[in-house]
Amino acid sequence: MNKNGLIHLSIPPLNKKIGKEVAAYLDTLTKPIGSLGKLEGLAIDLAKMTGVHHPFVDPPAAIVFAADHGVTEEGISAFPQEVTAQMVLNFLEGGAAMNVFCRQIGADISIVDIGIAANVTHPQLIPRKINRGTKNFRKENAMTEDQVYEALTIGMEEAENVIKSGAKSLIVGEVGIGNTTSASAVLTAITGLSAQELTGAGTGLSEEKRIDKQRVIEQSINRRQPNVYDIIDIIKKLGGFEIIAMAGAMLEAAKHRIPIILDGFICTVAAIIATKMNTLAAEYMIAGHCSEEPGHLQALRWLEKDPLLHLNMRLGEGTGAAVAFPIIKSATHMLNDMATFSSAGVSEKNNQK
Amino acid sequence: MNKNGLIHLSIPPLNKKIGKEVAAYLDTLTKPIGSLGKLEGLAIDLAKMTGVHHPFVDPPAAIVFAADHGVTEEGISAFPQEVTAQMVLNFLEGGAAMNVFCRQIGADISIVDIGIAANVTHPQLIPRKINRGTKNFRKENAMTEDQVYEALTIGMEEAENVIKSGAKSLIVGEVGIGNTTSASAVLTAITGLSAQELTGAGTGLSEEKRIDKQRVIEQSINRRQPNVYDIIDIIKKLGGFEIIAMAGAMLEAAKHRIPIILDGFICTVAAIIATKMNTLAAEYMIAGHCSEEPGHLQALRWLEKDPLLHLNMRLGEGTGAAVAFPIIKSATHMLNDMATFSSAGVSEKNNQK
Repeated sequence: MNKNGLIHLSIPPLNKKIGKEVAAYLDTLTKPIGSLGKLEGLAIDLAKMTGVHHPFVDPPAAIVFAADHGVTEEGISAFPQEVTAQMVLNFLEGGAAMNVFCRQIGADISIVDIGIAANVTHPQLIPRKINRGTKNFRKENAMTEDQVYEALTIGMEEAENVIKSGAKSLIVGEVGIGNTTSASAVLTAITGLSAQELTGAGTGLSEEKRIDKQRVIEQSINRRQPNVYDIIDIIKKLGGFEIIAMAGAMLEAAKHRIPIILDGFICTVAAIIATKMNTLAAEYMIAGHCSEEPGHLQALRWLEKDPLLHLNMRLGEGTGAAVAFPIIKSATHMLNDMATFSSAGVSEKNNQK
Repeated sequence: MNKNGLIHLSIPPLNKKIGKEVAAYLDTLTKPIGSLGKLEGLAIDLAKMTGVHHPFVDPPAAIVFAADHGVTEEGISAFPQEVTAQMVLNFLEGGAAMNVFCRQIGADISIVDIGIAANVTHPQLIPRKINRGTKNFRKENAMTEDQVYEALTIGMEEAENVIKSGAKSLIVGEVGIGNTTSASAVLTAITGLSAQELTGAGTGLSEEKRIDKQRVIEQSINRRQPNVYDIIDIIKKLGGFEIIAMAGAMLEAAKHRIPIILDGFICTVAAIIATKMNTLAAEYMIAGHCSEEPGHLQALRWLEKDPLLHLNMRLGEGTGAAVAFPIIKSATHMLNDMATFSSAGVSEKNNQK
């Protein structure tokens, strides 16, 4: 794929007519009007996305993209780089938080090596390594333009695979030591907000190390001079393979009218990248939660998304989306399974003065 | 039962030792320390409640207590009184919101007629009618002291039944046209907060009718003059059968170290009643959500509980607790199923300056 491929990437608009019909139908269900709050808004959104009156999000699929970041040599992470590969093996053996929550919600997980710095082999690992990590973007561009399109294409193809296998909603997760630094740099370039506002503790930096990380981001943006009107230029210079692949997966899901459940900071920056490429992508996204990473709230504001959960989580992997999934499922059950006032023989509201 | 029975109601204290051990164990799991936020606090709380290192909340059980309220003759509800019986039949046929969410989480629902004003018969209905609704507390005491103890006993017995049948967590719900008026009156008497602060739109009153409802509550408290130091006097004068039974069910669950998931306003007022009877009861409660009913936030503050969800729900029935349940279950999966750094061979955090 290249720029022309992206220009022609077609995402259908929301079906607003079905949304209105579902909104009217919700008021016939045996509950006071509007009394199920955000679940009602979710049900309407899902109907608009899927274009059907009785949407389902079951089964969900999760794709976790794993990659390393050259910028870790600047000492901006609480964990050493080898943890990316170690955590990927933990995922493959089923021991990570994301595995646990995916088992709970019945989601298959695909683990994709899109750029781990080490050799990892495992029968369940999907081997799509673009390179052994990105370059250190404090010193040079993170990747080439060809690698950007390669990462997008891999994300799209992996999403297409799970959708063809029957997934009705998509969670995209990530693992990659150093990826909050990359995501913060990309978001700073896109939004013009300061690195100070967007740079957080990641997986657990001390305040002193957080300031180092912020300085690395500021220096990198000054040196790389990304063209803020050109999303490809921004992500080529500051991005990560897994972050770009996540954006590709979201674009593909939106194309198929598959609802996307957003996780935390990294995932939401990927969502912004996807939306920069095609503004309709955002219409297919539901914000699962608001994480502790300070840039996340800013990223959600940029997308104009109201997160379902506020549980002070900051793990990534896709965990916040997986933990939020049952609430989205509750919205579909409300819409699809409740009785109406007339079917149940329940009197409607009194006329009020 | 009588007052002496309540005095001797024994609830075990939390097991703080196991809580500390579980907190330390959580820090060995393959995630940055504290990165699962409130899920970690929940896991520790569940360990303290159940007194075991690997607590489960599955399967949950739901008990829905249904009763009518004499005060509805004052016109304080958006729906006519016959809706209580109609909604009970809807529950029994599986069409209410609570049925839908309970099926999602695998909770059996028991529906208990503890004081519906109409005759309702159904093979699945548990018939424990104390009276055909309470008396209109604007004009006379809602019930006798004997009826208070009867309602408490029924709540305890029904909770004991589901616990004996294997329930590992408890949701108590309610249906009863007029019950936000009773709950608001009880909460006003307990907290000394004004009826204006605590009285909301219930199932959907206009602002004019809401002010009528507030006036009925103020007049009722002035006329009944409940002894604010005597919880039995307060609920005898202003309570509802279902609200008191909910308190009884919570006391019984706490006695058995069974975690209680709180729903909305009515349920949280019942939780306060239970806590007034035995302060240890509150230790076994988890606040599922914060509803739109303005008194709910005040009630949660009184209990010092931080709700898991903020979804603008205001339906009652137990729905907010049922929708929150998967999050509590996620906390148990995190604790029970994740790998540790050493078992997964993952490096721990860098030493930081």
